[in-house]
Amino acid sequence: MPRHHVERHFTGSLVVRDAVIGMADGLTVPFALAAGLTGAIDTTWIIVVAGLAEIAAGSIAMGLGGYLAARSDVEHYASERAREQREVREIPADEAAEVMEALQKYGLHPAEARPVVEALRKRPEAWVDFMMRFELGLERPDPARALWSALTIGGAYAVGGFIPLLPYMLLKHTLTALAVSSVVTLVALAVFGYVKGYFSGVRPARSAIQTVLIGGLAAGAAFLIARAIS
Amino acid sequence: MPRHHVERHFTGSLVVRDAVIGMADGLTVPFALAAGLTGAIDTTWIIVVAGLAEIAAGSIAMGLGGYLAARSDVEHYASERAREQREVREIPADEAAEVMEALQKYGLHPAEARPVVEALRKRPEAWVDFMMRFELGLERPDPARALWSALTIGGAYAVGGFIPLLPYMLLKHTLTALAVSSVVTLVALAVFGYVKGYFSGVRPARSAIQTVLIGGLAAGAAFLIARAIS
Repeated sequence: MPRHHVERHFTGSLVVRDAVIGMADGLTVPFALAAGLTGAIDTTWIIVVAGLAEIAAGSIAMGLGGYLAARSDVEHYASERAREQREVREIPADEAAEVMEALQKYGLHPAEARPVVEALRKRPEAWVDFMMRFELGLERPDPARALWSALTIGGAYAVGGFIPLLPYMLLKHTLTALAVSSVVTLVALAVFGYVKGYFSGVRPARSAIQTVLIGGLAAGAAFLIARAIS
Repeated sequence: MPRHHVERHFTGSLVVRDAVIGMADGLTVPFALAAGLTGAIDTTWIIVVAGLAEIAAGSIAMGLGGYLAARSDVEHYASERAREQREVREIPADEAAEVMEALQKYGLHPAEARPVVEALRKRPEAWVDFMMRFELGLERPDPARALWSALTIGGAYAVGGFIPLLPYMLLKHTLTALAVSSVVTLVALAVFGYVKGYFSGVRPARSAIQTVLIGGLAAGAAFLIARAIS
């Protein structure tokens, strides 16, 4: 079986993807919020309180959001599959015509496509699987993933959020804390972007520059807005 | 052509999906942050500054994140397609075996699957398209979407974020503002969840309850954490 080149399409497990989703925002938003508040407030404890409140809010919102997204993938797949099963049973001629049409879009002549359709008609369950993949482009999601997805996203958000916030917890002067937080977080964003690029098939150096730019722009905008209105 | 039942698989355009992504977090995180700060601070202006800084940070981070995700979808598709083209040209026997194998997973006998493989071998471009869809489950993304995706996500985040923040801008007392903000935002979350459920095929009432619960939990946790440490 020619599996040797299929593996190369693999681009990081679902756990890695969840961790990347959580950490991307966790590193960026609490960093930008703290930087923004430094433009308006000169007591670190308010920034720490706001940062921790943001980490709690963000990790819960993203974690639960991820949970619901994973649950709704499972339900969406189940309901689409039930629909295909019903259609294969009740309007098999329509479904057969759909397969014919789809295969002809790939240049197959009716005479070439018909044996496939006939073969699928004899095997309703395989036919349904074929429609799920070919017509709808859906893969069966793992029902047990929702909880892990939530914990991974939420946890990664919290871990990411503590990196920019720690300097404000340890240092007295807000501007010193901002400077240390910026250096530490931009380095963390660069490392994170590099690793993320590696897993997602983007050139790592370019991915690192992109995540640093996003973090820097978000923090700069937050800083300027907070300074302008205070 | 039996297209009458295919439309029912449709679950909201990409613009709607982007708006939902942005607004889900925009309604939740600034609301929870403001509520959290109310547990620690009794001046509304700091909450407004923090809220605006969060909206700026969040909409830029999410908008640019959406931009990069859409760009990387385009690049991922292009690089996978180039790989499939190379494989179809250089190792056609392996690719043909892959198609055979995939079709046999759907219960087709080798004799039934062979005509398809032979037909695809005669049409390399159609073969590549077939592999993109069937082996990799990828659809060709629209390259022009990245910018609109970014603006939709970021804009929806900002619009969503102003809803919980307005009471703090208009009212003097933080606890009054918190009460008004909570009522307004939980109603907005319920409406948003209902509409989101409608577009994503989840029961609207259940979706409404879920978004309200996420917002409430995030805000409650942020409030308790901010109060505990201040």
